[in-house]
Amino acid sequence: MSKIRVGVLGATGMVGQQFVRLLRDHPWFEVAYVAASPRSAGRKYADAVAGRWHMEEDMPEAVADLVVGDASDIARAKKECRFVFSAVEMDKKAIAELEAEYAANDVPVVSNNSPHRWTPDVPMMIPEVNPDHLDIVPAQRKNRGWKKGFLVVKPNCSLQSYLTAVHALRAAGYPVGKMILTTLQAVSGAGYPGNASLDLIDNILPFIGGEEEKSEREPLKILGRIEGGQFVNDESIRISAHCNRVAVVDGHTACVSLAFADKKPSLDEVKKIWTEFRGVPQALDLPSAPARPIVYREEPNRPQPRKDRDADKAMALSVGRLRECLVFDIRFVALSHNTVRGAAGGGILSAELLRAKGYLD
Amino acid sequence: MSKIRVGVLGATGMVGQQFVRLLRDHPWFEVAYVAASPRSAGRKYADAVAGRWHMEEDMPEAVADLVVGDASDIARAKKECRFVFSAVEMDKKAIAELEAEYAANDVPVVSNNSPHRWTPDVPMMIPEVNPDHLDIVPAQRKNRGWKKGFLVVKPNCSLQSYLTAVHALRAAGYPVGKMILTTLQAVSGAGYPGNASLDLIDNILPFIGGEEEKSEREPLKILGRIEGGQFVNDESIRISAHCNRVAVVDGHTACVSLAFADKKPSLDEVKKIWTEFRGVPQALDLPSAPARPIVYREEPNRPQPRKDRDADKAMALSVGRLRECLVFDIRFVALSHNTVRGAAGGGILSAELLRAKGYLD
Amino acid sequence: MSKIRVGVLGATGMVGQQFVRLLRDHPWFEVAYVAASPRSAGRKYADAVAGRWHMEEDMPEAVADLVVGDASDIARAKKECRFVFSAVEMDKKAIAELEAEYAANDVPVVSNNSPHRWTPDVPMMIPEVNPDHLDIVPAQRKNRGWKKGFLVVKPNCSLQSYLTAVHALRAAGYPVGKMILTTLQAVSGAGYPGNASLDLIDNILPFIGGEEEKSEREPLKILGRIEGGQFVNDESIRISAHCNRVAVVDGHTACVSLAFADKKPSLDEVKKIWTEFRGVPQALDLPSAPARPIVYREEPNRPQPRKDRDADKAMALSVGRLRECLVFDIRFVALSHNTVRGAAGGGILSAELLRAKGYLD
Amino acid sequence: MSKIRVGVLGATGMVGQQFVRLLRDHPWFEVAYVAASPRSAGRKYADAVAGRWHMEEDMPEAVADLVVGDASDIARAKKECRFVFSAVEMDKKAIAELEAEYAANDVPVVSNNSPHRWTPDVPMMIPEVNPDHLDIVPAQRKNRGWKKGFLVVKPNCSLQSYLTAVHALRAAGYPVGKMILTTLQAVSGAGYPGNASLDLIDNILPFIGGEEEKSEREPLKILGRIEGGQFVNDESIRISAHCNRVAVVDGHTACVSLAFADKKPSLDEVKKIWTEFRGVPQALDLPSAPARPIVYREEPNRPQPRKDRDADKAMALSVGRLRECLVFDIRFVALSHNTVRGAAGGGILSAELLRAKGYLD
Repeated sequence: MSKIRVGVLGATGMVGQQFVRLLRDHPWFEVAYVAASPRSAGRKYADAVAGRWHMEEDMPEAVADLVVGDASDIARAKKECRFVFSAVEMDKKAIAELEAEYAANDVPVVSNNSPHRWTPDVPMMIPEVNPDHLDIVPAQRKNRGWKKGFLVVKPNCSLQSYLTAVHALRAAGYPVGKMILTTLQAVSGAGYPGNASLDLIDNILPFIGGEEEKSEREPLKILGRIEGGQFVNDESIRISAHCNRVAVVDGHTACVSLAFADKKPSLDEVKKIWTEFRGVPQALDLPSAPARPIVYREEPNRPQPRKDRDADKAMALSVGRLRECLVFDIRFVALSHNTVRGAAGGGILSAELLRAKGYLD
Repeated sequence: MSKIRVGVLGATGMVGQQFVRLLRDHPWFEVAYVAASPRSAGRKYADAVAGRWHMEEDMPEAVADLVVGDASDIARAKKECRFVFSAVEMDKKAIAELEAEYAANDVPVVSNNSPHRWTPDVPMMIPEVNPDHLDIVPAQRKNRGWKKGFLVVKPNCSLQSYLTAVHALRAAGYPVGKMILTTLQAVSGAGYPGNASLDLIDNILPFIGGEEEKSEREPLKILGRIEGGQFVNDESIRISAHCNRVAVVDGHTACVSLAFADKKPSLDEVKKIWTEFRGVPQALDLPSAPARPIVYREEPNRPQPRKDRDADKAMALSVGRLRECLVFDIRFVALSHNTVRGAAGGGILSAELLRAKGYLD
Repeated sequence: MSKIRVGVLGATGMVGQQFVRLLRDHPWFEVAYVAASPRSAGRKYADAVAGRWHMEEDMPEAVADLVVGDASDIARAKKECRFVFSAVEMDKKAIAELEAEYAANDVPVVSNNSPHRWTPDVPMMIPEVNPDHLDIVPAQRKNRGWKKGFLVVKPNCSLQSYLTAVHALRAAGYPVGKMILTTLQAVSGAGYPGNASLDLIDNILPFIGGEEEKSEREPLKILGRIEGGQFVNDESIRISAHCNRVAVVDGHTACVSLAFADKKPSLDEVKKIWTEFRGVPQALDLPSAPARPIVYREEPNRPQPRKDRDADKAMALSVGRLRECLVFDIRFVALSHNTVRGAAGGGILSAELLRAKGYLD
Repeated sequence: MSKIRVGVLGATGMVGQQFVRLLRDHPWFEVAYVAASPRSAGRKYADAVAGRWHMEEDMPEAVADLVVGDASDIARAKKECRFVFSAVEMDKKAIAELEAEYAANDVPVVSNNSPHRWTPDVPMMIPEVNPDHLDIVPAQRKNRGWKKGFLVVKPNCSLQSYLTAVHALRAAGYPVGKMILTTLQAVSGAGYPGNASLDLIDNILPFIGGEEEKSEREPLKILGRIEGGQFVNDESIRISAHCNRVAVVDGHTACVSLAFADKKPSLDEVKKIWTEFRGVPQALDLPSAPARPIVYREEPNRPQPRKDRDADKAMALSVGRLRECLVFDIRFVALSHNTVRGAAGGGILSAELLRAKGYLD
């Protein structure tokens, strides 16, 4: 089987670099095209990124030699690749327009960006949670008169540290009514240069602009349903989020207290549900799917960012410290890798699901 | 006025050092006696602590020259000082017995230790919150046949980062019914050597043994009342705490969501209540009392440990980010200095209150 | 005595804030004027700095209410103050011209900036090391036709962690011939936002642009002499510096190996020389002068940034670990506070020396 | 080919865990036996290490099920395995005796410990630097009347960050005469719990007990020669080391200034020598040998611990910032992974060399 040629828009930025790194030796996809701002266009990728390669592994050689295209040159992208991962860094309105234009020009977009998260017919994917949301693609095309293109996005990284665990409980017949949670988020979530070291040595930042709102609203769409060619939120769950930045490189941790809407499982049932949970990516054996989407750690002081973020290719959620909540029903700690599971890796998994479902044929 | 002679038990340990540091130039008290384990006894304080002085300021010279006593030698302490601050490090049972024996021998004890926190007739003090709990001293003496001695303790440091803010709301007529909170606690709370740096570089620890239970139970006694010569908990409030250790030297931060039991103030009223709150220590103008017990920060990203822990001699609580909670009523971030306000400084403030109320005459 | 009115150019930046903080309650000087870029001009200082006040203490109230001037408006500065501290942030050429113009207009400038460090008739001051370099002021005025104005600068912060210790040895009759040293420098030296936290969590940066060259060259001028109205370097000493950035907020540490040019003191003599060293600022009892410019720590693991940077108002050098060098003669560790001693505090000490010598009458 | 059965003494400690981790799927060796103190003996390895597994990857399942032996039970070890890696944690004298007794009982020992480093007939190996030192094994056996057993050790981790680079220059005909260097060492080098986080948040420790002496002396033996059945130091090189502990998890960095003893290569020649250097492990294509022992980084701010410690299975040395030294001849920054290259990985590479040379047949 020959590999599907993919492009990475915004390939010189930090998320773009993650896409490039994670797609090295991918069994289905190969990075055939990289694009960025006009400033980088025309230069070899290695040169355009020189001194700004933030990954701990060296750059894949095949990509190093690619000549960077201009992200606004859709015609070129169309020639070079079958679909694109988008991590362009522009103002939100410009991103929204550019991504739609790619789709209109028959180039599907799997976007890491936020502008289309609330576009009513654009699915916001966590493949283990809402794989059926891809069913909106035909309606999306119809709504907009697109033929081969479409648009798929991923949610904010912070909620990915716990939402799959909540979904597993719902799927097992235990709908959740209320959640109060506090995150301790890694600095890589702010990009580079991101947070000043002066703000995080012997310190924490108890505020991340816009993050709490995203953590509280995006799950409602992800857990929602398709109706009349667009998404309807699940408003039956209420979430309150406190978001903090801490001196951790990668890995967002969440301390979650949760009240069930209806009946309440025992702690042992909860652990069993999490441990046995498998989603569509597991059923389809997608290349980037973790074998077990949720890993329960029995140690009293886990999960921890440095020890657990890389679980199963950094794609698994690690959960621990499940116990009764004195106010709600249960509480626990959950953690996932924000720039892999929560960003580029999650996008790649969505693309794998798209391909498995025939949308990239 | 000549100063009251005080002793510090466990003076060579980290909290003992804080007592020594904070009592330098105290207007009412002077450190006249230091005691520790037999291993240190008989040596000059400076020598006993050599290489283990953890304060950022140098040791007060007057104390450096004191000869360390044996903490078990109560007769000597009785000769040397009027009362003692206790920060001895022994097993819990031994501490409980030793402190009671000091009190039985006419040496009042203001203890930083936990063993007597749940002794029914021992007050667990936050002077701005429950100054009237000192009224139990006569009953305590009577219960035990003590004459001049008595026993007073301070609560766990973690709850001190937010309980005064909760008390101020209650005192203004807004009782609190439920709280879910997450702490990000400084490593100094674990003493020295305490947490391994391997555990806190590029990492957080989502667990502190026993801390959540203390954070959930101790407020009930502090907010309780005296009845029949002992304390009765206020069981009208339910608290659920998630406690984390982070790479911060000093300063515990808490992210708090709170539901009122009854009527609910506006956000502006809450700020007004906090800003205007003054307690008995302020009314009495006690030397270690912060001018304003609660400092409200309007900046969107405050309080922060490094910037706010030292507010008003490290004795004020800093609060910020007050906003509606999507699940409960309000949420906010609160912070205080764990080894000053939450430990030695809090003990000194209690002693000042004791003296102002005539218990140290 | 009424205080001398001073201005702070670049008052909204990080070093400017340090000047404002350190001049609170200064016995000789009062901040009567603050100036910054046109963007800040016309606003109250508190408003211009809102959300960007990086000091751990709150802003002095008297300064908070000052209306910020435009740093390029020299006429206004001349009316408002007797002299200025300059911490303006512009390109180097613009700074050089602006500072010279202030001096030409009778407003003396004590600058924290680097552009005039190598101007042949501008003294680069460490008041304990080269107080006599102020003797160039008459020649400087004559060279340039200035009347009341003049220009004085301070050297790079990194060399201030050890140069006074080297000078003390020279002054005691032990000239130094060669030094190889490695610095571990604090992030505050890079300003705000400065170093990205992604670069300093679980990491060090083994490079600081331009820092090694400054560390190697500036001492030659500081240790040099005045000849014919300008400075002549002392080329008898050779220095090789390795400069690193580490995850420390404040306090530059240097590991120094040193060979004497000529005769060699014993280790005990070296300690004695350092401990007894006093400079002109001490003789004149200048307000910001540390009582002992060099504090020798006998503990085997000192000096350390967090414990020693604040020694004597953060103006003293802390030195420790003196021992034989297996290649050169001696080696030791030296440390000073980079943003106080090495920046604003050093500038204030220079101004105090200028006033004591009558240059600000 | 069936794998050689190996044992790990001290398998429950941190270095022991590294051996276990690194030997997972080793092509030549399999961990057939683990031993530790009597306290752990008799329990399954997974249970003995429960809650103290410090590796970021999960424990290999095959080892998890092994029953831990008592490290002092040599007879058992002899039955279980062909040779042992020793990382026992006991007092130095006891380690020295135990390791010798293993060897005397026909069980070769490749030790990570220090007690035998200065035993005259025991080779202290860096396989790329002194592979010929294994030639002493016959003499060692003869000296002691051992038959199949022998004893091989590895040097201190800190010097491994730069000594291969020095050796490469010597091997190319440029002997080195003098070196002054400063290390910035990772906390994993101190084991667990090791350094207190209170010592390394917003701080560095400018002292590591015994480390400077090891860094200065051990290279003389490693670079020495065999004469009359024992090692003779190379005393032609003089080294002065300043050793610091910094807040880095893994990866020791060294800033090195170096004077050649004789003729001096150009900077370009030095880079060429390093880049082209290959040792015996490369020639033999040993499984753990890095393809290039020395990786030269051209970026101005590399090597950095977090980005470069894992180069080539964490077995390669990363070097950068080569430039003229103003006092000696050249200076540069060098870095290696202290617990892999500098400890367990280095031990495994030595064992591979031993096997390749027939000593484990």
